[in-house]
Amino acid sequence: MTNTALAEECAADVLLRADADGITTLTLNRPAQFNSLSVELLAALQRALDAIAEDLSVRVVVIAGAGKAFCAGHDLKEMRSSEDEAFHQALFEQCGRVMMTINRMPQPVIARIHGIATAAGCQLVAACDLAVAADVARFAVSGINVGLFCSTPAVALSRNLGRKKALELLFTGEFIDAAEAQRLGLVNRVVPLEQLDAALQTLCAAIIAKSALAIRTGKDMFYHQLELGLEDAYRYAAGVMACNMGAEDAREGIDAFVAKRKPQWKGC
Amino acid sequence: MTNTALAEECAADVLLRADADGITTLTLNRPAQFNSLSVELLAALQRALDAIAEDLSVRVVVIAGAGKAFCAGHDLKEMRSSEDEAFHQALFEQCGRVMMTINRMPQPVIARIHGIATAAGCQLVAACDLAVAADVARFAVSGINVGLFCSTPAVALSRNLGRKKALELLFTGEFIDAAEAQRLGLVNRVVPLEQLDAALQTLCAAIIAKSALAIRTGKDMFYHQLELGLEDAYRYAAGVMACNMGAEDAREGIDAFVAKRKPQWKGC
Amino acid sequence: MTNTALAEECAADVLLRADADGITTLTLNRPAQFNSLSVELLAALQRALDAIAEDLSVRVVVIAGAGKAFCAGHDLKEMRSSEDEAFHQALFEQCGRVMMTINRMPQPVIARIHGIATAAGCQLVAACDLAVAADVARFAVSGINVGLFCSTPAVALSRNLGRKKALELLFTGEFIDAAEAQRLGLVNRVVPLEQLDAALQTLCAAIIAKSALAIRTGKDMFYHQLELGLEDAYRYAAGVMACNMGAEDAREGIDAFVAKRKPQWKGC
Repeated sequence: MTNTALAEECAADVLLRADADGITTLTLNRPAQFNSLSVELLAALQRALDAIAEDLSVRVVVIAGAGKAFCAGHDLKEMRSSEDEAFHQALFEQCGRVMMTINRMPQPVIARIHGIATAAGCQLVAACDLAVAADVARFAVSGINVGLFCSTPAVALSRNLGRKKALELLFTGEFIDAAEAQRLGLVNRVVPLEQLDAALQTLCAAIIAKSALAIRTGKDMFYHQLELGLEDAYRYAAGVMACNMGAEDAREGIDAFVAKRKPQWKGC
Repeated sequence: MTNTALAEECAADVLLRADADGITTLTLNRPAQFNSLSVELLAALQRALDAIAEDLSVRVVVIAGAGKAFCAGHDLKEMRSSEDEAFHQALFEQCGRVMMTINRMPQPVIARIHGIATAAGCQLVAACDLAVAADVARFAVSGINVGLFCSTPAVALSRNLGRKKALELLFTGEFIDAAEAQRLGLVNRVVPLEQLDAALQTLCAAIIAKSALAIRTGKDMFYHQLELGLEDAYRYAAGVMACNMGAEDAREGIDAFVAKRKPQWKGC
Repeated sequence: MTNTALAEECAADVLLRADADGITTLTLNRPAQFNSLSVELLAALQRALDAIAEDLSVRVVVIAGAGKAFCAGHDLKEMRSSEDEAFHQALFEQCGRVMMTINRMPQPVIARIHGIATAAGCQLVAACDLAVAADVARFAVSGINVGLFCSTPAVALSRNLGRKKALELLFTGEFIDAAEAQRLGLVNRVVPLEQLDAALQTLCAAIIAKSALAIRTGKDMFYHQLELGLEDAYRYAAGVMACNMGAEDAREGIDAFVAKRKPQWKGC
């Protein structure tokens, strides 16, 4: 499917896609349901992310929400529409696959949080590579309030925050504000709501100005080495870096730096 | 042994136990020795925690200290009473078992720190799921001052703090205050001493208001997934969450949420 | 090679060595190249660290930089002098070996950062056990600006910082100041430039006042247990601590503490 065709399909759908200057914005578009992650929305996200992963013209992905909320987690009504454990197992696995896809795709994925991000919505923030929030945004892993511990959100959350604070949020379901989320490591930058898009634009532009090859090499390397012991991680990273050094972009980048001129990236 | 019998035994002992409204408070009761963790006190803690782990009427455990200190670590005089390495090996293993029991028991365990927490006392804070401190509390891993590096405390500490700060504290034995401990991730909440019990009560009440099943499912899941790689962790958490969704409490919780009424937990 | 001979060799070289009162200061000495880590400088560092690791008269190692910068990373001109991937592979492995040597040597290694620390220079800060910075110091993992993602620096950085902030720095190449570096966990202490040596002296003195045996036992234990699961880590640490307790210094330290006198360390 071409990007345009996909974009058109999505426009009438639960997920909107907009492409501009190397930035693809995916907007969760179930505002009346606070963008809760229905099976349909998760499937649309999976399709869109899979398509983007193959499309090197996309340099950065932004995930945003339509309406008041960023994302309120799973769709509780849909979840209660079945008593079949296999249905729920499939749902949570589907959600986990979306998170792993964010993690593995070559482009940096940035969450744009303008309102509440709760339960699997907070997981989505934690699973993104980067996150920029409005100062009015608020975050909670609130499944515990409905008797359903935020287990898959805990996976992402505990890889962003210290464990005592992560457990407190998971046990109490309490909200934290954007400033606290930044202090704890859940979001990178916090700005007034009216500056949110400008702040995102600045961050995206900083990434797009870099070599696409170096960015995708680095993202893949980063998550891989996190799961290795220290010595294995250094050995692995040395190999990746030597390979990166053999690429045209690194030679061009260094030559440009030495000559004090702007580099011309080829992305390879 | 019934709880009452255990409570009576402890009352005359190095460990006090008080039960009220689902909260069990274990008070280290060797005030003249700054509640140092003698073999006897560690054994009493182990017995009490093992009994509580089997008792689902207990929803939250608070560990507190009698007298001026929270806990000053191991009992140095007792440690010097033997030159037998097997004695010391057994002591440190006994201490590690207490920490692992805190980690594995179904109820959240909260440290209540009103005074100093040093060496294995600081380890106890780090090993608890949550910690609430008075602003006058102070923390150190001070074994290094007596030629005995805080090795088992380092295990817990380095899973709460960044490694550079953890190493600094371990190498220098220096104290940090409660505000710094909170900033670093060692404690969750800091309040004036006279508000310490109210703050604990608030935190305990927030947890007790939740489904006991969801809390114990979540605690067990949380620590288990921390030791898995990302993809395995998501897969594991998806299974736990599907199972949790099959429980009565999750159905009741979601139905109550949708109907905008208070849920009635069964704990199963 | 004796220390004196090594010191003389280094004095005329890219790495200076000064020994005083148990503190060995290694000064990166390529000020015109912002102390970039040429093959020659990395080899000199490796030799010096290997020699120090065998020399128990050295209690603490300080790594400093001559001139304006702390260290600007790899030597880009030297890197571009060859198109041979084997050359680059060897270079990054050599660099990784230096970092692992810092990690494994028995003495604490402290970075003294008075100016910029970029790319592999920032890696060096992250790989040290401790770091003290002047308030004017600045930090970046800026390889991305020349098309070469800071892969080996990411290994060290991501073991100091939360992953979202680490990725932001790696993707954007942007600088952070010393106060931010401290908040994030990359450096331990920040002071005005004119107090930098006094702050280092204070930290070194605090370490030197301790038992050398306990310090080296603890450093080795600390990094080893970080790579174990929780239960294995407690078991391992209990064994190390029992062994430490059997040493003369621990007995002396505890006896001195109980008798309220200063301990006399033997370092064994």
